[in-house]
Parts: sequence; C-alpha cells; structure tokens
Amino acid sequence: MTERRVGVWLFGARGSVATTTIAGAAALRHGGAPVGLVTETPAFADAGLVPTDQLVFGGHDIVETPLTKRLESLVAGGVLPHGIESLVRADLAATEPDLVTVVDRQVSQYEQVKQWAADIRTFAERHDLESVVAINVASTEAPYPHHPSHDDVGVLRHALTGADDVLPASSLAALAAFEAAASYVDFTPSNSIRPAAVRQWAADRGLPFGGQDAKTGETLVKSVLAPMFSARALQVHAWSGTNLLGGGDGATLADPRTAQSKNTSKERGLSDLIGDVAGEVHIDYVDPMGDWKTAWDHIVFSGFLGVRMTMQFTWQGCDSALAAPLVLDLARLSAAALDRGHVGAMPFLGFYFKDPVDSTEHSLVRQYDELLRWVREC
Amino acid sequence: MTERRVGVWLFGARGSVATTTIAGAAALRHGGAPVGLVTETPAFADAGLVPTDQLVFGGHDIVETPLTKRLESLVAGGVLPHGIESLVRADLAATEPDLVTVVDRQVSQYEQVKQWAADIRTFAERHDLESVVAINVASTEAPYPHHPSHDDVGVLRHALTGADDVLPASSLAALAAFEAAASYVDFTPSNSIRPAAVRQWAADRGLPFGGQDAKTGETLVKSVLAPMFSARALQVHAWSGTNLLGGGDGATLADPRTAQSKNTSKERGLSDLIGDVAGEVHIDYVDPMGDWKTAWDHIVFSGFLGVRMTMQFTWQGCDSALAAPLVLDLARLSAAALDRGHVGAMPFLGFYFKDPVDSTEHSLVRQYDELLRWVREC
Amino acid sequence: MTERRVGVWLFGARGSVATTTIAGAAALRHGGAPVGLVTETPAFADAGLVPTDQLVFGGHDIVETPLTKRLESLVAGGVLPHGIESLVRADLAATEPDLVTVVDRQVSQYEQVKQWAADIRTFAERHDLESVVAINVASTEAPYPHHPSHDDVGVLRHALTGADDVLPASSLAALAAFEAAASYVDFTPSNSIRPAAVRQWAADRGLPFGGQDAKTGETLVKSVLAPMFSARALQVHAWSGTNLLGGGDGATLADPRTAQSKNTSKERGLSDLIGDVAGEVHIDYVDPMGDWKTAWDHIVFSGFLGVRMTMQFTWQGCDSALAAPLVLDLARLSAAALDRGHVGAMPFLGFYFKDPVDSTEHSLVRQYDELLRWVREC
Amino acid sequence: MTERRVGVWLFGARGSVATTTIAGAAALRHGGAPVGLVTETPAFADAGLVPTDQLVFGGHDIVETPLTKRLESLVAGGVLPHGIESLVRADLAATEPDLVTVVDRQVSQYEQVKQWAADIRTFAERHDLESVVAINVASTEAPYPHHPSHDDVGVLRHALTGADDVLPASSLAALAAFEAAASYVDFTPSNSIRPAAVRQWAADRGLPFGGQDAKTGETLVKSVLAPMFSARALQVHAWSGTNLLGGGDGATLADPRTAQSKNTSKERGLSDLIGDVAGEVHIDYVDPMGDWKTAWDHIVFSGFLGVRMTMQFTWQGCDSALAAPLVLDLARLSAAALDRGHVGAMPFLGFYFKDPVDSTEHSLVRQYDELLRWVREC
Repeated sequence: MTERRVGVWLFGARGSVATTTIAGAAALRHGGAPVGLVTETPAFADAGLVPTDQLVFGGHDIVETPLTKRLESLVAGGVLPHGIESLVRADLAATEPDLVTVVDRQVSQYEQVKQWAADIRTFAERHDLESVVAINVASTEAPYPHHPSHDDVGVLRHALTGADDVLPASSLAALAAFEAAASYVDFTPSNSIRPAAVRQWAADRGLPFGGQDAKTGETLVKSVLAPMFSARALQVHAWSGTNLLGGGDGATLADPRTAQSKNTSKERGLSDLIGDVAGEVHIDYVDPMGDWKTAWDHIVFSGFLGVRMTMQFTWQGCDSALAAPLVLDLARLSAAALDRGHVGAMPFLGFYFKDPVDSTEHSLVRQYDELLRWVREC
Repeated sequence: MTERRVGVWLFGARGSVATTTIAGAAALRHGGAPVGLVTETPAFADAGLVPTDQLVFGGHDIVETPLTKRLESLVAGGVLPHGIESLVRADLAATEPDLVTVVDRQVSQYEQVKQWAADIRTFAERHDLESVVAINVASTEAPYPHHPSHDDVGVLRHALTGADDVLPASSLAALAAFEAAASYVDFTPSNSIRPAAVRQWAADRGLPFGGQDAKTGETLVKSVLAPMFSARALQVHAWSGTNLLGGGDGATLADPRTAQSKNTSKERGLSDLIGDVAGEVHIDYVDPMGDWKTAWDHIVFSGFLGVRMTMQFTWQGCDSALAAPLVLDLARLSAAALDRGHVGAMPFLGFYFKDPVDSTEHSLVRQYDELLRWVREC
Repeated sequence: MTERRVGVWLFGARGSVATTTIAGAAALRHGGAPVGLVTETPAFADAGLVPTDQLVFGGHDIVETPLTKRLESLVAGGVLPHGIESLVRADLAATEPDLVTVVDRQVSQYEQVKQWAADIRTFAERHDLESVVAINVASTEAPYPHHPSHDDVGVLRHALTGADDVLPASSLAALAAFEAAASYVDFTPSNSIRPAAVRQWAADRGLPFGGQDAKTGETLVKSVLAPMFSARALQVHAWSGTNLLGGGDGATLADPRTAQSKNTSKERGLSDLIGDVAGEVHIDYVDPMGDWKTAWDHIVFSGFLGVRMTMQFTWQGCDSALAAPLVLDLARLSAAALDRGHVGAMPFLGFYFKDPVDSTEHSLVRQYDELLRWVREC
Repeated sequence: MTERRVGVWLFGARGSVATTTIAGAAALRHGGAPVGLVTETPAFADAGLVPTDQLVFGGHDIVETPLTKRLESLVAGGVLPHGIESLVRADLAATEPDLVTVVDRQVSQYEQVKQWAADIRTFAERHDLESVVAINVASTEAPYPHHPSHDDVGVLRHALTGADDVLPASSLAALAAFEAAASYVDFTPSNSIRPAAVRQWAADRGLPFGGQDAKTGETLVKSVLAPMFSARALQVHAWSGTNLLGGGDGATLADPRTAQSKNTSKERGLSDLIGDVAGEVHIDYVDPMGDWKTAWDHIVFSGFLGVRMTMQFTWQGCDSALAAPLVLDLARLSAAALDRGHVGAMPFLGFYFKDPVDSTEHSLVRQYDELLRWVREC
C-alpha cells in the first residue's frame, strides 16, 4: 500500500470541523499526537490504511473566509492549542487553491452536479490522486420535502434537468461525488443519501456511501449507557437531555427546522436500544459558550421490584476537536472501501454515527467490533 | 430440566442484600416483575436455567434479627416498595428455620468448616435439593495477611487443624461450601477465594467458584464508559470518584481497612481498561442517606491535539435493590455450572463483577457476550 | 392573641399542595416537626402569629376526589411519609364538609363572585372564625388577554354583570375573597391580582393581597446565587435551566400557554438581579417522575480579566412538600396583616415569591430581613 | 484622596495568585475590565478608595522564578487570557527589583522579623509611599503547635530572641508587617494572626489586621446556600464535598497536614450557619487539572414532614483568577482602614473570608452589607 495519495473532498471546507481536520492532519505531520484517531490505535496497525500524511485536502464552501483566519478564531476559542498557528499556517495556505467557492446557481441542478463533479476531478488530476473520498461537513440542513423523483434513479435523473429544484444541496453533493468516482460519507444529519434514488445512483456507479450524523458527545455516551441498562435488565422510564452550545453549529441548530433533522437522528439510536421512553431533548443556542458544548442527561430507571433510581451526566466537550479525528478516520476507511471495491451502504461505519445507514446496531462496543472485523477481513 | 429444586445458601443471610433477595424471589412468585434479572430476559429464555420459584433459601449469619424485621426497615428506607410486607411475610417466616446463627468459635478452623458444611448438608437433605449454590453476601472483610498455608492445599489442610487462625471467615465459608459439594460465589471483595489453596480445594472437589465484588453502580457505569474512551482513542488523564452511602454497608466501609479491600477491587477494572490515571476514589459514610448511595465521578480527557474536556456523572441508586436480582442470576448460573460439571474458576461470570476471577475483560458488553456464549454452549 | 381561630380558604382545595397543607397542619397538631415552616423558627416566636392549630381549612375545587384518596396517592408517591394516613385521616374527613365543589357557571361573572363570597362567609360563620385568609393553590392559568375593564374598578364592576367573560377564574376568586372580607394571596403565577382594577377592589374594601408564584426550588436557589455573583462582581453571561417534573403540575405546565405564565414569572427575578443574559428555561413534563421535580441549571460567568468559568446545580425536590409549609406561613402572616389593618399589596411577603407584588427585591436574604422587620414592627 | 500611592507587600510574591494580581492590576491600567473587583462596582464609587493604578507592588518569596515566566505558564494554563503577555510584560519587569528573595535563616526569629520589616520600609521609601498594606498569599502552612509565648506579647517578644523557633513563617510575616507600620491581611488559612500575642502586637502598634482564608469557590457558594436552607427552615442532614485541583495549590493541599488547616477553616462557616451535619470534605490533588478546580457538593435536606430531598452543585473555576481581584479589593480596603486609623481586627472584611476574624457572620449578603456600611461610615 505504498505511495498512493488520497484526496479528501470536504463539503463545507471552511467550517470549524473542516478547518480543525485540515489543521490537525498538518499537525500530525509535524509530530502531533494522534489523540482521538481510532485508526491510529494498535488494533488498526496492520490494516494497510492510507497514512494520514498521504491525505490531500480540497473542497467546496459558500463562504470565503481564509482557513488561517478561521484557525485563529478556533485557537482563540480554545478548540485548538496555542502554538499551532505557526506550525500549520503554511499547510493551510497550500490548501487554499483547492477550495472552490460555491456561488448562486444559474443552471439546472443537473448542471450543478456536473460542475461540482468537474471540480473534484480537476482536484484529483492536479494532485495525481489514486482516489478521492468526499465527506459532508457542512451545516445541517432542514428536512427536505419528499419528491417522487427520490424513489427512482431514472425519474430523478430526468427531474434534475428541469427548472424546479428536486433535491437539497447535500444530495447534489453526494451525486457530484459519485459522478467524480468518489465515495461519499455524510457527517451530518442532512438529507444527502436518504432518498433511495441517491443510494441507487451510488450503486449504479459501483461506489460506497456512508453516514449519518457523527456521534461525538451526548449520543456517544448514550450509545454505551443504553446498552448497559439493557444488558442489566434495568428498566429505563425517562431519558431527558439538554444540549447547550454556541458557535456556528449552535446558531444553525437554534433554527427549529434544522434542529428537527438533528433530533430525529439523535433519538433514533436511543429508541432502537431501549424502546420509547418519556423525556425530551433540547438543543439551545447559548452564544457565550462559543465552540464548546455542554450536554446534561437525566435518566430515570427502575431496579428490582420497581424501585426508582436516577443517573445524570454532564459532558463538556468541544465538538470540532472531537469531530476532526473522526473525519480523518472516515477518510482513511472510505479509501479502503473504494480500494476493496465495496459498493453501496457501509454499515460497518456505524461506530461513528447516530443514524448509521443500513444498520440497527447502536451499541458502541458492538459497532467497534463490527468495524474491526471489516477492517481485518482483507 | 424439570422439578429439580436448588438450594441457595447465603453467608450473611440476614443482611440487606440477602433479605432483599429472599423477599424479591418471593415477590416474583407472587407476580412481581423481574426488573434487573438478566437471566429472565428473552436472550436467556432457552438456557434451561432453574426457575426462580424452584430456589430454596438458607444461610448463616452472626446476627439474629428476624427477616421480617429487616424487611420492615428496608421498606421504610425505600429499598422495597410499600405493600410487599403482606405479600412476602409468610415466605420469610418459612425461611427462618433454615437460617443458622454463627456463634463464637471454640474449635479449630477445620472443625468450623466441617460444622458449617454439615449445616449446608442438613439444609439440602431437609428440602431434598438437587444441588446447593453458596453465595457470600456478608459485610466486606479487611484484607487478611498472607500465610504460607495459602499457597498449598496440603499445608492449608494441616494448618487449619492447629490452634492459630490462618484464614478469615470468608475463606472458611468457601471451604465449607466445597465440603458440602456446593459451588461458591463471592459477591463481595473479601478474601474468600483469593488464596491459591482455596481455589485448589474447589478443583480437588470438582466444584466451580466465582466472584468477586459485584458491580452494581459506579463501577458498572465505569465498565461501559472506560471502553468508550478507549474505543474512541480519547486519552483519559484523570478519573476521580466520590461515593456517599449510609446503611450497614456504609458503616462497614467507613472503616479504612475494609475500604481498602473495596477500593483495590474497584480500581482494578479501570486500570485494566485505560491504564493508570490520576484521581482518587472516596467512600464516605453519610448516615442520613440510609440504604441509598450517590456516586459522583469526574473524568478529564483529551480530544484531538490535546484539547482538555470533562465528563461528570452522578448515580443515585439503592445497592440492595440493584444487588438482589444479581444474586438470583448468580444462583441460577452457578446451578447450571454445577449441573454441567464445570470445575474451577467461572470467568464467564465477569459480567457481574468488579474483579472477575481469571479474567482481564472489564468491558460490560464483551462480558455480556461472553456470558451468553457460555449459557448457550450447551 | 388568645383563642382566635382563623379560616384558610384554599382555591384548588383538593390538589396536591392543598392536601399536603391540610394533612401537614393536622400532623403538626399530632406532634409532627415543623420542618420548612419559617414562622415556627425562633425569630418569629414573639410575633404573636395565630398558632397553626387554630387554623381551620375550607375551599373551592372543580374536582371531587376525597382528600383521603389524594392523601393515599401522595403517600404512594413519596410526598408524604408512610404512617401519616392513620394519623390525619379523621382531620381530613372533618374538612370535607367545608370543601365546596365549583360547577359550570350559568350566571354572570358578578353572580359567580357573589356566590363564592357567600361560600366563604358561610364557612366563617359555621366555625365562628375571627377572620379568613384566602390562598390560591389551583393550577396555573394561561395568560388572559387584556380587557379595558381591567384598568378601572368602576368599569370592571359593570362589565362583570354582562354576558361576556372579562376575567379568568383566579381573578374572580380574588374578588370573591375581598367580597367576603378575606385577604387574598396568589401562590401561583396566574392572572388573579394582576389587573389594576382587582388591586383597587381590595384597597376599596380595606384588604391586603399578595403573591405571586411561590419560589420553592430552582428559583429559590437562583434568588441566592444571583446576588452572590452580583455581590462579587462576577459577570454572568448565560444562565440555562431545565425543569423535569411529572404529576398534575407537570401536566399543566406541559401546555405551552400555561408554561408561558410560569416562565415569565420565573425569569423576572433573574433579570432584575443580574440583567438580561443568554440561556433558555425549559419545563418538561416527564410522567415517570410523579410528584418529584429535578431542575438543572448551568451558569457561564467570567472571573478576572474575562476568564470563563461554569457553575451547575441540580435540585431534586418534591414541590408539594416544599410548598405546603409556605402556605401555612402565608396564612399566618396574612392573618396578621388583616389583624393590623394592612391595606393593599404586601411587598414584605416577597421572601416567598418569584414575582413579588410591588417589590423589585429578589435577594432571598434581604427579603427575609424585610419580612422579619415587618413582623417585628408591631 | 489625591496623589497618594499605596504599597502592596505580598508574602508569596511569585506565586500564581500574586502574579495574577500584579499582572491584573497592570492590565486594568491598560484598559482591562474590572470583572470580579467588588470595590470597582458603583456601590463603592464614592468611598474614596485608592485607585488601583496607584498601587505599587513588592514582596517576599522563597523562589526566584521571574514573574514573566510565571505569567507564561498562567497563560498556557488558561488562567490569564492570551495576549496579556505583551500588554503587561514591562510592568512585571518593573516590579522585579521590589521582590526580595527569602533565604535560609541563620539568625533568631526576632532578627528575621526586623530584617523583613526593613525590606518593607526600604520599599516604602524607594517609592515614596503613603502607606503599605501587607497580604499573605503564600502556600498554606500546616497547623503549628501551641507555644506559651503565643498568649502574651511580652513573653513572645522575649522568646523570639531565643535559639528555638516559636512561630511559623506566616506569623513572622505578620510581625514584620506591623514593625514596618503596615497592615496585614491573611488570604490563607495559615497560623499568622491566630496567636493572641500576634494580634496584641498589632494593637500595640495601632495597626489593623484581617483574614483568613479567602472564599473564592465552593465556600463562597456555601455561604449563600446555607443561609437559604436556614432562612427557609429546611433541615440539612448532610453536606459532602469533593474538591479536585492541580497546580501548586493542589500539591500543597495534597499534604494531609496543610489540608487540615484548610479543612478546619472551610468547615467553620458551615457549622456556624447550619450546625453540625454529616458529610466529609475532600481535597484531592489531580495534576492534569492544572490551575483549575472543580468542586462537587452534595446536600441532603428535609422538607415538610421529613421528606428527604437533595441538592448538588458543581463549581468549575480558576482559583487564581477568582482570588486576584479580591487581593486588589483587600489592598484598597486595608489602605482605607490604615488611613482611618482603624486598630485591631477588621471583622467588616468577613465578606472575603471563610474564617473571618472576630466575626461569626457567614451569610455572604449580610457580610456584604456590613462591608458597605463600614465603607460608607466615613
């Protein structure tokens, strides 16, 4: 597995997660410790994954904030350590030419897909890349209304050429990836690969896709606590959660419509693990918290003979710093799937997601074992 | 697997855990829901375990408090639901004749073992039991100094006949169980089966043993959180814990020497799972908390590039109500092991313990899978 | 201050708070400890307040559940201690004849007021009471639209005789109290005494009124923490809160309209104390929590040179058991105000309320001092 | 109150608190916001306190770490904001000549006092200071054994000239301050002004003294919560606390002997406020927490009729950033006391301390009012 270089195409390439990912990969090259990178642990040592220093970054974004400027605000907000600026500034500057600004569309959605796919291919050729993996780290979209074209790839192909929009941006991004022979992983709970026709499109092209909605904090903890209650036959009666967060992600989720995408995704795992229980999940935008997030969960359960007990937890983390190493993991694993010729959904990536495609397994430990089995299969 | 009745011999038979167990088994017979009983979940349905209504209880204790009186104080303390008294009073009264009071010993430790074994055999004969499983639910002992006889069963057999004590009560209890052809499981972190000679004694008799130190609260949670941090390659720097509890268990653990047994046992799992980290564990006796326990844990960890984050949890539970269904589980599983002719340590019971014999697996989910594999083997 | 007996007329007389109050007063007569009763502390010993065993209870309610039945469910829910039933059953039964059921109104609002006032006077005569104090402990109402009659007592008097409703039930209750020469205190955030005309009505009759929205839990804590941050010049940036509760109160507040009354009232104190800060307050109905409530608050503040710090607290209490002694306090204090001929708002009761009438003081300690000053004035 | 400049002599002048204080005062001069400075709030505007930009810093320390180096580590640890280095570097460098290194003593304790007093006088003369206030911010000492000389100033004066040590360093520091006509405030729970003879010494010199043990976090919160429970007649049964901290302060307190000084001081207020209750206080050294501290408190209390309830809080703060503005407050207030000719204990500074001299008032709000009254007296 020598000398191959893999392109990582990020949709939302100038956001916090993307910038932390690109800066982090650079920091690793300069000797940073790979904390949070699952694929750098000993269990994955013999998997032949592409080394992180062979990853080349490019991407789309609708804003033009320079990566170095975003980096500064991440450092000021405590997401990235002081001192990293001087270390990685040159790397970020070198990535700038590979970031394409998305402008208001004047053409059909089909033309848009073709244009984005061309951007990705240009990137691959410029760097002589063996393959490209696309990952969506853009802001969460509101739920998109169903359209008949979502159910059939032929109908969809035709509808895209029409004057009306039939797909949201995240799905166009997925199709663009497939048209450029790239895999596609959705790190968010957006629509992207939810329509059957989008999934079929990937299959028709012989490409893998995965997602959705990376679990980095509260849901990560849920994915180990819920199996605990369940393994011990302790009956959970209510699970309530409040998430406080500032930053760009917080502002997006303060919109009730995008929050709906998030909540649906967050709650799926819990419901699959322990059934429907009482309790609500709140996502509050609290500006002074910046890029940091605090989640409080309160769980009411019964022990023997119905005696009521309580568990609470508080998680205080920085989402971008938790997300970035997972993006690198997913890039490496997607590259392996492409290399192995995997076609269609990648349920073995469920370890990373709140709402894993084609999988009902939400227990983190079992998901980990499943990932490791897949990695070792070859 | 019909009509067989299994004896459950409890060391510490008049304590909170034992009383809750005996009352709980009676409540189940009268239609109570088996919350917290892992062996009553669907996954164990076909395992052919002895039904809980075929369990017959007996045991040793040094106190003489009637079970019904203890029951009343457990109800008053909220450990057991109001209304249970009338339901199970008759069952508890029926158990009284099978509870043997331990008096100050005038004989050698060897004679003591023989006498206790005779008590167990009498119990088995009186009820025409197919087999007897012994479980230690007495108060935690202080660590016992090493004695040369602990390393060799022949030396031990001889030393026991001497004038000096060479073993603590919990180990004598284990030997008594083995002499009565019973299995032995230690629910506490006491010495019991720690000496090699005690384990060899079980093997010589062709009997199984297991333990130690049931995980019911804080450690249960640790056993899923630590694997989470580890699976996600998040570096844990410090894990601090404070346990507040009242009741008899609290008073025992307020003694620094017994607390030492407990802490050693509690910390083993964490250290096996994530290595040595900073932080202390406190066990405080807080009388007004009665039979309830609150644990607060505070974890400092790093995400990508060393950014420090924090997780805290609070567990508010009632130990006896969490422990009792596990005692019933262990009785049923030990009976199955006896039935299958299993000899020596039972590492497949690690799911229940902080310090599992002959096992270094501390991840709850993996322990659960291991238990289920063993159950289904036959 | 001898031999006088005071009537306590409760609107919502069969609810949890009222039942706990009536049962609690009876338990005190039978030797119960007056925990939570501020007016029973030494500082109030010489105030000449009417003794609690001279309080006689009556009231209105729209339901007919017997007090003893409500008592049983409060005991089952852990709000009242086991054993209290036998102690106070006779007292509750003796109160039943003084509880008047409110039926659907066929008459004008003015007639309604007269009828309710007559109920109160009948009660006073039957028991030969020196005076009657009315307290509203009914469910929280939704905000009521403004009507021109709310601003002028003459206009109101006329409007009440018309066919259209111009006041909500809580305001009618206040007027009924005034018509029966009783004082009126609103324990809830309902409309009741908010209209200027209702307040003027009390003044015209020479009667005192007070409220609103008793602080029993989260807001009680806020009323000491906010002054702490403020006294130490620590800048609060965000204060977020989540309240989980079941029971009847929870069900009422799950309705967004009544929650609005509650939230407006809850937030007033914080805003008066530390200005407007970021953060939301949630009130979630969590049925399995029964009569118990858990509040979690998360506060972001700055120390020197802007360094960000955090405080969190969790309050786990039972509202009825916190409210009932305050109702007794307010009954005794209202009786003293009546006795002293106090007319109009009672701002010196601010110690008890989230939204005190005619007062902007929200610091609990200062409110306490103000109450004590008033009590000692005479 | 014009043009006068006041010297602030810090014992422990190179520690975290001192460095944050000196750097913070400089930052204020350069336009920093006075968050956490009580004496900069409007209530103190007319008090005529010496402006912070007229404070001149000097002090003793046993280490020689340059202030700028300590500053860097405070910035790296998140105690001080990035960017402050360039702002205040010159100010810190300018302070260096006024910091005197304490070396191993070869002379009698009396000579030591004289020498330190001379250091202070030299500092006062060099800067032409109107007065000097001394504040002890050195590490907490272990409790010092009682010596007969502690009870009588004449005996003490003689004993100090002998070969044996009779006082700990903090008391010598107090005497040195008095010999240099400076006031003395102990910010720590060390021995310093505890001996009656030391207090008498101050009185003989006509000087004020104050302390002890500044309340910056957990105890600050206790000083408002305990009065809340007490004002509401809610019975507190148990109050448990765990404090996790790293940094130099943590290392000092990890020594059980110094922890004893701290705990005695911490618990005094609680006991004065609500009597003796169950529960322990732990102070754990957790190295990875650096200069940050987390306190968790768990309170068990009863409402009406003995129903048990619980409150928990978590305080996550940075002690140095909380302490530094208080040091500036105390310097300004001590200077006012000197100016007004106040002699002896300053109980009106109780607002700042866990264990206030000559005061049993621990309610923060009342302490605040008392401070304000004193300030406004003149």
